[in-house]
Amino acid sequence: MQALRFENFQLRLAEFPPPRMEGEALIRVLKSGICNTDLEIVRGYAGFEGTIGHEFVGIVEESSDAKSLIGKRVVGEINVGCGVCKLCVGGDSRHCPFRTVLGILGRDGAHAEFLTLPTRNLVEVPPDVPNEEAVFVEPLAAACAILEQVEINVETRIAVIGDGKLGLLCAQVLALYSDEVFLVGKHRDKMLIAVNRGVQGVMLNDAEKLARDFDVAIEASGSAGGFKTALQLIRPRGKLVLKSTFHGDSRWDTARVVVDEITIVGSRCGRFAPALELLRDKRVDVSNLISDDLRLAKGIEAMKRAKKKNAMKVLLTP
Amino acid sequence: MQALRFENFQLRLAEFPPPRMEGEALIRVLKSGICNTDLEIVRGYAGFEGTIGHEFVGIVEESSDAKSLIGKRVVGEINVGCGVCKLCVGGDSRHCPFRTVLGILGRDGAHAEFLTLPTRNLVEVPPDVPNEEAVFVEPLAAACAILEQVEINVETRIAVIGDGKLGLLCAQVLALYSDEVFLVGKHRDKMLIAVNRGVQGVMLNDAEKLARDFDVAIEASGSAGGFKTALQLIRPRGKLVLKSTFHGDSRWDTARVVVDEITIVGSRCGRFAPALELLRDKRVDVSNLISDDLRLAKGIEAMKRAKKKNAMKVLLTP
Repeated sequence: MQALRFENFQLRLAEFPPPRMEGEALIRVLKSGICNTDLEIVRGYAGFEGTIGHEFVGIVEESSDAKSLIGKRVVGEINVGCGVCKLCVGGDSRHCPFRTVLGILGRDGAHAEFLTLPTRNLVEVPPDVPNEEAVFVEPLAAACAILEQVEINVETRIAVIGDGKLGLLCAQVLALYSDEVFLVGKHRDKMLIAVNRGVQGVMLNDAEKLARDFDVAIEASGSAGGFKTALQLIRPRGKLVLKSTFHGDSRWDTARVVVDEITIVGSRCGRFAPALELLRDKRVDVSNLISDDLRLAKGIEAMKRAKKKNAMKVLLTP
Repeated sequence: MQALRFENFQLRLAEFPPPRMEGEALIRVLKSGICNTDLEIVRGYAGFEGTIGHEFVGIVEESSDAKSLIGKRVVGEINVGCGVCKLCVGGDSRHCPFRTVLGILGRDGAHAEFLTLPTRNLVEVPPDVPNEEAVFVEPLAAACAILEQVEINVETRIAVIGDGKLGLLCAQVLALYSDEVFLVGKHRDKMLIAVNRGVQGVMLNDAEKLARDFDVAIEASGSAGGFKTALQLIRPRGKLVLKSTFHGDSRWDTARVVVDEITIVGSRCGRFAPALELLRDKRVDVSNLISDDLRLAKGIEAMKRAKKKNAMKVLLTP
């Protein structure tokens, strides 16, 4: 089968044997999405070698332990715990120290014709969610995770920093629960997607006027500058949710965190079910987040497009 | 009166008029304690000019609005809010953006013969708490604040990083609530003070063997290295309490925070009442934390001693 692989410091489209099941379900990929993490891997940050990609929707072709899933359209949680350690037994396999992660850690990923995952990781996609929207479940679930980590009500003043895909998803999800969501960004065209869903747009240059004015700030820009802005905007005793990592100059104002007793909450993946419901009920606009949809055979070109400034989600279809 | 003042980039013992009351209580200082923040101010970090010092016990000499306090021995909360802003009205004057802070921000401090504070800031000291212990109320309250920010029970595994005064206070307080408190430090003699109160000592060099093994880590060393150690020791989804700020190289592993969904909690001051109770009931050993007790007239020498490596609390008596 075709697979987009990163090996020996090189990205290439390879002919590669379909994955063996090893007790897992075999899934034929219908569509996959390129995430910034894929770009990081290709930059050599994550140390991963193999088939990249972790956002997908597919059809179950084989399953030894859940025959009823065969032929069903599914998305899949990407972390696979060892199943026996303290964390897995306690129900938190997402943080299992021995876990594999689809296309990120010790497990071939989704930019391929086929992948495997344990059936317990699979969630069926409702019929009225098209493939090009279902493929957003993983990042949308990551946005929804904020709701489980920080208390949000209709009056909570929230600043989302970053008008990329993740920022736009976070802002839209939070605007379903709060009337006071502000998106801080640089690109009016992108910000409009969230503004059309009830979010207020603030150009980055104007953000400092709103210093110390937010109960919650979400850093979703993936930059040290975004973190700095988030820290400026948060009120004393506020909560800063770190949704994305960043490299480079990450000096930070520890005095601001201690003196104003700010809480920084690291946030990664979320549960798929609530995200699928949002897509089914059309409560979040993801279709405007797609900038390209290419054949898997054009995977190298797709990665180039995803890397471009201002690129939004680039999809791949095997 | 005599006062230890930092002015024009210079620390000096000055003859200075006693403070005017301006509707506040006038307090004759019985004893004050030198804090690392005092040393920071003298290094020019905080931008403060005036009489330094914020840890004290004293006698109320004058009060227009609480005559019953006159002649009483008191300690005092150091933040004085404006009283009219949103935060003050909401009961959080500690974070009032217009606040003054005793000996730290816009308000002359405690290394002097007299100081003033609003009577609402004062808390009477029980008769069985001697002056040299009462002077620890402010840092002890800061240690107690952790209990209001992070859930601690008898099984919570806690690592306290730093065997200085703050670390020793934090470890002792937490050991009253958890059986699993570990103090990570470099000085066996200091660590023994906490070990004698039920804390387990871990030499810094051995700490990495306990990586990812703690539910809660308290950074109390005031160093970038201490923060790094705390981040190593915390388990996925654990809480890292930042009790002290640090300068210099403060690069940090944002990926660890995001991927393992760690929460960092900035923590500063605490309420005085619970700390006074701990002192009254002798549940925390502070007497072994004192390395010197000098007359205020020797204030310059006292600051030098406080700056020395391995110094513990240096007290001043007017």
